[in-house]
Amino acid sequence: MSFPENTATIEIWSDIACPWCYIGKRRFAEALAEFEHRDRVSVTWRSYQLAPDTPAGLRRPEIDALVEMKGMPVEQVRQMFAHVANVAAQDGLEIDFTTVIAANTFDAHRLLHLAGERRNELLEALFRAHFVEGEVVDDRDTLVRIAASAGLDSDEVRVGLDGDAGADAVRADLLEARMLGVTGVPFFVANRAVAVSGAQPKDVFLALLQRAIDDAAETGTVTDVADGDSCAV
Amino acid sequence: MSFPENTATIEIWSDIACPWCYIGKRRFAEALAEFEHRDRVSVTWRSYQLAPDTPAGLRRPEIDALVEMKGMPVEQVRQMFAHVANVAAQDGLEIDFTTVIAANTFDAHRLLHLAGERRNELLEALFRAHFVEGEVVDDRDTLVRIAASAGLDSDEVRVGLDGDAGADAVRADLLEARMLGVTGVPFFVANRAVAVSGAQPKDVFLALLQRAIDDAAETGTVTDVADGDSCAV
Repeated sequence: MSFPENTATIEIWSDIACPWCYIGKRRFAEALAEFEHRDRVSVTWRSYQLAPDTPAGLRRPEIDALVEMKGMPVEQVRQMFAHVANVAAQDGLEIDFTTVIAANTFDAHRLLHLAGERRNELLEALFRAHFVEGEVVDDRDTLVRIAASAGLDSDEVRVGLDGDAGADAVRADLLEARMLGVTGVPFFVANRAVAVSGAQPKDVFLALLQRAIDDAAETGTVTDVADGDSCAV
Repeated sequence: MSFPENTATIEIWSDIACPWCYIGKRRFAEALAEFEHRDRVSVTWRSYQLAPDTPAGLRRPEIDALVEMKGMPVEQVRQMFAHVANVAAQDGLEIDFTTVIAANTFDAHRLLHLAGERRNELLEALFRAHFVEGEVVDDRDTLVRIAASAGLDSDEVRVGLDGDAGADAVRADLLEARMLGVTGVPFFVANRAVAVSGAQPKDVFLALLQRAIDDAAETGTVTDVADGDSCAV
């Protein structure tokens, strides 16, 4: 018994509210596109919340949220925005912080867990909606519309969001992040063994991918130590 | 950055419809209760379906289902039942195959994914309902009642089951089982590195647990290879 061809698993914790996650996602995608063994890499996006205590329905300009949550002077937040937007622009992302609305991201994360194979596409759409288009990412109709743009069925999404769908999966991700000691995102973990924190340059991600494949080649075999009575298909 | 105290993770794929899973669960629990480092073992129950193609709502005596699905003569199925019930009795489980109703277990697995920290208790209750009490485990009211008996909120469970709650999590488990090449359950995987298949004797589980802790001590450290720009809480 072995994992197919020593697949390397990369888990990435991120929050829709995190601009470095958006930038890091872009850089990681570029690294992965260049990586020769990319067909042996399994990527799992995991949920993280920078501001889990934001009340549902509370929406305010990002600058107000940061001034309050971080206790930073307005001018300093503006400088930080300018720096991040500048870096983002170099990666081809047009973040416009003057339009960004801070809101609780829990439902957006639930939605991501409903997206199945469209999760990567949906996450991309959510980042864009939040950072480029000034959308309110805890608004139900907005989430349904974004999901539809990523190819999901609107009715199914609405029923899921109206219910509790995805909530346990989000909580499991948050709990796991806590167990791993994650305090900032994006946070990349390869094979549950090597971690990279932050929006690294592409070359760092390439190095992580190479190391993940090398490690998988050494340890990726699941050894059956015993076979006992079991129910087979 | 490290996993807390080199925690060993044990993932167990099982199906409510699988008597060896019920027996294996009992034996594994006994091994874990005896294991000196049990406080460093994290157990995750995962979903597996022996008969995923059983139409929702189709309910029939287990003997009829096996005769049809396996193409086995009735007498041979009866002998198998007697053997399994006999082994189960030695482990303190009173399986009564004459009352067991075969049904699709997908909703029961969805329910397990909604149970959070009560998952172990709920799985125990589902096995008991199916194998001892002759309950129909794809019946909505029955599932709600069993969930309530395990301490879950009936209204929340009903809303979740009426929606799509847990479905993605079940599918993710099934997919992972396929990727791991699992063809029979119960299937135990330690640290994604060592596997044990079947309802093993307690001592085999103790050996698996010891090996899992030893391996975790060697490899359980997540190494930060780099820190970059990130969003912190």
